[in-house]
Amino acid sequence: MNINYCTQCGGTVVLRNVDRDNIKRHICSQCNFTHYQNPKIVTGCLVYKNEQILLCKRAIEPRLGLWTVPAGFMENGETTRQAARRETIEESGANVELNKLFIVANLPHANQVYMLYLAELKGNDFHSSHESSDVKLFTKENIPWNNIAFYTVKLALTKFFEDSEKNQFSLHEIDF
Amino acid sequence: MNINYCTQCGGTVVLRNVDRDNIKRHICSQCNFTHYQNPKIVTGCLVYKNEQILLCKRAIEPRLGLWTVPAGFMENGETTRQAARRETIEESGANVELNKLFIVANLPHANQVYMLYLAELKGNDFHSSHESSDVKLFTKENIPWNNIAFYTVKLALTKFFEDSEKNQFSLHEIDF
Repeated sequence: MNINYCTQCGGTVVLRNVDRDNIKRHICSQCNFTHYQNPKIVTGCLVYKNEQILLCKRAIEPRLGLWTVPAGFMENGETTRQAARRETIEESGANVELNKLFIVANLPHANQVYMLYLAELKGNDFHSSHESSDVKLFTKENIPWNNIAFYTVKLALTKFFEDSEKNQFSLHEIDF
Repeated sequence: MNINYCTQCGGTVVLRNVDRDNIKRHICSQCNFTHYQNPKIVTGCLVYKNEQILLCKRAIEPRLGLWTVPAGFMENGETTRQAARRETIEESGANVELNKLFIVANLPHANQVYMLYLAELKGNDFHSSHESSDVKLFTKENIPWNNIAFYTVKLALTKFFEDSEKNQFSLHEIDF
């Protein structure tokens, strides 16, 4: 993200090195405040019930109309698991019990780290929401493989069904 | 972090809700740009050689003079493993081969997620640096347990020696 003005004093910001830091930072020419920018965590759940997995049809951009797992940006003040559960409730209304951390995927070109948890659906309640125009359980065969919103999610679903067949779920670390 | 001025147009920023978002955001009163703030990832290595572990004596604040593992803020454009390796080289000069992800620790009060990898020291070279006034290998018995810089690190070291005794290393997820 481009930074033109200082968040602290409103002064003009320049991109330059400071001391031994070899990365150029956005530094205020007036008060010297450094504006660091770091990767963000996207966290969510692979919600399963027996052999089925819960997907949400995106009601918002990007990838409106395509299917994804409930996930989103982690907020300050929460843990990764709290954020994953919150995103699941917000996007699908599903009440889940989180199990293992299943996917850690690095997307350095997007400055994002995905952390997806396996989570069992409790009860049978889920529903569309502001962010999801439809929410459904899919078997492996019924998943709309050609209409998955993000390749990270497609890969996570593939790993889920691979591990499910082996009946052994491990952590998958993926660097894109 | 407090945000007074807009990074895009220099306008005055106000803290308020937008649409369905129930978290107050820093929004520009002039151009409506939203300044999101999200947790940061701290990544690093538990560097081991046989039964010993590498620690760095901090030459900078915070916790100057106390011991820690090489770790620091992940930067945009890198993966978690690349960041862990970079921090290790910067702080200790150690060449390492990264193995398992060993610790995922949430510090919601600090808006941080720690991701620490097990990493084997290659060769015997390591040295003090701008950030470390001393770098040493320690056996469990010799670790300066009362002079560890961060409780996350103390817990990571404890888990390392526990798992080492069992000869089985697993991922530890810790929420503080």
